[in-house]
Amino acid sequence: MTRAVNAEDVEGYAKITGDANPVHLDEAYAATTRFKQRIAHGMLAGSFISALLGTRFPGPGTIYLKQDLAFRKPVYLGDVLEVTATVTSYQAQKAILRLATVCRNQRGEIVVEGEAVCLVSEVSPGGSPELSGAAVPTPPRRVVGLS
Amino acid sequence: MTRAVNAEDVEGYAKITGDANPVHLDEAYAATTRFKQRIAHGMLAGSFISALLGTRFPGPGTIYLKQDLAFRKPVYLGDVLEVTATVTSYQAQKAILRLATVCRNQRGEIVVEGEAVCLVSEVSPGGSPELSGAAVPTPPRRVVGLS
Repeated sequence: MTRAVNAEDVEGYAKITGDANPVHLDEAYAATTRFKQRIAHGMLAGSFISALLGTRFPGPGTIYLKQDLAFRKPVYLGDVLEVTATVTSYQAQKAILRLATVCRNQRGEIVVEGEAVCLVSEVSPGGSPELSGAAVPTPPRRVVGLS
Repeated sequence: MTRAVNAEDVEGYAKITGDANPVHLDEAYAATTRFKQRIAHGMLAGSFISALLGTRFPGPGTIYLKQDLAFRKPVYLGDVLEVTATVTSYQAQKAILRLATVCRNQRGEIVVEGEAVCLVSEVSPGGSPELSGAAVPTPPRRVVGLS
């Protein structure tokens, strides 16, 4: 999944979540920080991972159990993030899927990465062709959603 | 920090993040799932943790390094979440603060929990009285932001 991050996203996210840290909203304050300019919320990039899992792969029916996030680099306004999920293991008996989840910026730098753990027993094959029938994924399998 | 979760929040969050999983947005679809009704995005609750850290404690200047999230129970529309962060360790030399982060619903059930790791070397004492001067926290220290 590819997502541009703009000021509107950051401001809307701040309003909904209450995360009004001035480094995200106040250009003058941000200029005094190590970042020198406004940055997006790291958790906004994390939310794009959730979006990929919930809408593309595994898709609707996915039950999100865990997500680890490491915020490696700042995300600046205007950055374009590529969000990917790569299956690393699948416990068929419990229908537990583990995925390596990564957000890269337009320079190919990893900005956020971590592991997702999902229960996929209720994912409908129609909604997620990748998981249908015999096509249960075996690692490593890379899935890149396209915008 | 106490936060009510309403339909507007969930719909706004879905729009900004692109996480349009129907379990969050479509009452009829949600009725067919194990949840029987619409639920909030787990990552929206995770975002409230980010909000607490970025605005209350440690506050502006906090550099978010890591966040682990375990989604324990669904968050339903209308739920009221109490978000808490408890210092578990502080590495003074590197200014690395570790916090146990928990979201509980109005029934006291843990819905989301995990660990946050923050760099607090640039947190201004004025912005975060809890971290000023000699008052560097020693674990365990519980901090509950109030709405």
